Amino acid sequence: MENGNEIPEDANEHCPGPQSESAGKSDSCEGCPNQNVCATAPKGPDPDLVEIADRMATVKHKVLVLSGKGGVGKSTFSAQLSFALAGVMDYQVGLLDIDICGPSIPKMLGLEGQEVHRSNLGWSLAYVEDNLGVMSIGFMLQNADDPVIWRGPKKDGLIKQFLKDVFWGELDYLVVDAPPGTSDEHITIVQLLQATGIDGAIIVTTPQQVSLIDVRKEINFCKKVGVPVLGVVENMSGLRQPLGDVRFMRVSETGEERDDTEWALEYLRKNAPEMLNLVACSEVFDTSGGGAAKMCLEMGVPFLGKVPMDPQLCKASEEGRSCFTDQRCSASAPALKKIIEKLLPSISSSPRENGA
Amino acid sequence: MENGNEIPEDANEHCPGPQSESAGKSDSCEGCPNQNVCATAPKGPDPDLVEIADRMATVKHKVLVLSGKGGVGKSTFSAQLSFALAGVMDYQVGLLDIDICGPSIPKMLGLEGQEVHRSNLGWSLAYVEDNLGVMSIGFMLQNADDPVIWRGPKKDGLIKQFLKDVFWGELDYLVVDAPPGTSDEHITIVQLLQATGIDGAIIVTTPQQVSLIDVRKEINFCKKVGVPVLGVVENMSGLRQPLGDVRFMRVSETGEERDDTEWALEYLRKNAPEMLNLVACSEVFDTSGGGAAKMCLEMGVPFLGKVPMDPQLCKASEEGRSCFTDQRCSASAPALKKIIEKLLPSISSSPRENGA
Repeated sequence: MENGNEIPEDANEHCPGPQSESAGKSDSCEGCPNQNVCATAPKGPDPDLVEIADRMATVKHKVLVLSGKGGVGKSTFSAQLSFALAGVMDYQVGLLDIDICGPSIPKMLGLEGQEVHRSNLGWSLAYVEDNLGVMSIGFMLQNADDPVIWRGPKKDGLIKQFLKDVFWGELDYLVVDAPPGTSDEHITIVQLLQATGIDGAIIVTTPQQVSLIDVRKEINFCKKVGVPVLGVVENMSGLRQPLGDVRFMRVSETGEERDDTEWALEYLRKNAPEMLNLVACSEVFDTSGGGAAKMCLEMGVPFLGKVPMDPQLCKASEEGRSCFTDQRCSASAPALKKIIEKLLPSISSSPRENGA
Repeated sequence: MENGNEIPEDANEHCPGPQSESAGKSDSCEGCPNQNVCATAPKGPDPDLVEIADRMATVKHKVLVLSGKGGVGKSTFSAQLSFALAGVMDYQVGLLDIDICGPSIPKMLGLEGQEVHRSNLGWSLAYVEDNLGVMSIGFMLQNADDPVIWRGPKKDGLIKQFLKDVFWGELDYLVVDAPPGTSDEHITIVQLLQATGIDGAIIVTTPQQVSLIDVRKEINFCKKVGVPVLGVVENMSGLRQPLGDVRFMRVSETGEERDDTEWALEYLRKNAPEMLNLVACSEVFDTSGGGAAKMCLEMGVPFLGKVPMDPQLCKASEEGRSCFTDQRCSASAPALKKIIEKLLPSISSSPRENGA
């Protein structure tokens, strides 16, 4: 992977690397557009890394939540994992959103409109509860509709500030919600946290082939940069709803639709009442390829389980609620809980990279 | 937006900008790490832009497909739009995938395993039919599972090559499928194509609030960079399936599940046969916020229509098929067709940016 000593795109051949003692001074540097920068730039470890290590000294576990493809429910998982760790299990939890261009975390934690304050300790988190603090660029936008039109270096700079300037305090878990892909944000977060110890990454996917293709890339990214894969979660694994919650449409010969739900439910109650005890299931995504379980087997990483597509979980996410506090998410919350229970032992026992 | 004259992050105060005649030479440049590069770099228009203009001279219309959030069906829409333009309407179509870290287009066009060849005309497209050519980084990976661990400048470099080095030939439509967000890929494609005329952007979303928040950012991105918004498509707008395609589960008191589909269908046929003429509908995403139609009204951009969530469309995408060639996608194909018919006149009449 790229690192502090990465060679610029436009460097001369035989570039010794910008961190080398001979940077800007070797024969091969003659005429290179970077010669001046390389010759004068400070060498040695990034002093920011030392500050980050200080901030992270009070954080026991660091977990990344990744996905290859967007829209697979990664932020929903990060949010509900944080709710579970803090609300159900009473840990001290921090949640960091590094999706700079599309931050969903403020809404999913019910924290829209919150702002970041600065004190002599650093930037302050927005708190859901005393033991669940959150940081996101969403708290820094004057207007929620403002686009963040930033290239990589600016995004990387903010991520560095999130780690260096935020007062995280004593945490049992720091959950980092990343955007999809394997680019700036991912390279940067790993570079900045690796020396302080990353417990590992949870990878979220749907059962679709197009999502699994990208997940394979994400797993190989983790292998290349040395971040342990704690496991893969298959989300949106079929829609399930009590039949009584389904709407029924009648389609005429000309293609016109009419909502006939009331009639249908009355008709069922009268003629086929036992149907109303059943749960309707639909495989939205084609799972004939074997889904995430098969892929995990092939790639030698743990499969953590499936979470069904549950409109009530979508609703809880939209409203910034935990799915664990009431019975509404009966189709998804038990599955999420099982996954988190399976996950935790592997976090505490994971062979941390270069870490404590 | 950032442009060719953007000021580096680490520049001195009062930086005249790297494209200025006094770049690297003004008083404020003293001691700046970029001084050498600025003083020696060539000024004036990027010669690559001239080459791109040559390539694009034979392309009548250029349309971007964008989304704020990932996983909303943007690539599915790009793929089916291309199938419709080429297969149904017989136009000459090019499809360019600029999602560098997560390319889905090769699979969705049935072109997995294809490779890029070079001739004296340039890089060759992979062809679905004579009139539908495709370019993607997916055709360049030795192994489909290889992650593309690239920061912004490398991604931008490849996008430039896609425009400059590919032999696009005579095209009625060039459809560009972008990754989610408003970062490197988006800034770059607009900068590179704007002088040749971009007809506009189609923005894909789901009805969820979390997706609509990001879509507002995307619309404001388009407004800021001067790309006309051709319209917004609401995808995954409720799942619809003939009731006979639904599976039925019986949940015991202890939470165990049993598939009782066969029994349920037999029971319905006997006691409530009229149910089997109905279509079952589920709102997977909470639409109480009014969905994309309301947002379009508020933001003054055209609403193009809704495409229902259709497992058969997902399957067609996974298998790289057009949804228009048979009756299998009966829930989604007519909706897509309507949207495309509504879209086309606005493409030919759109006030193109700086263009022909």
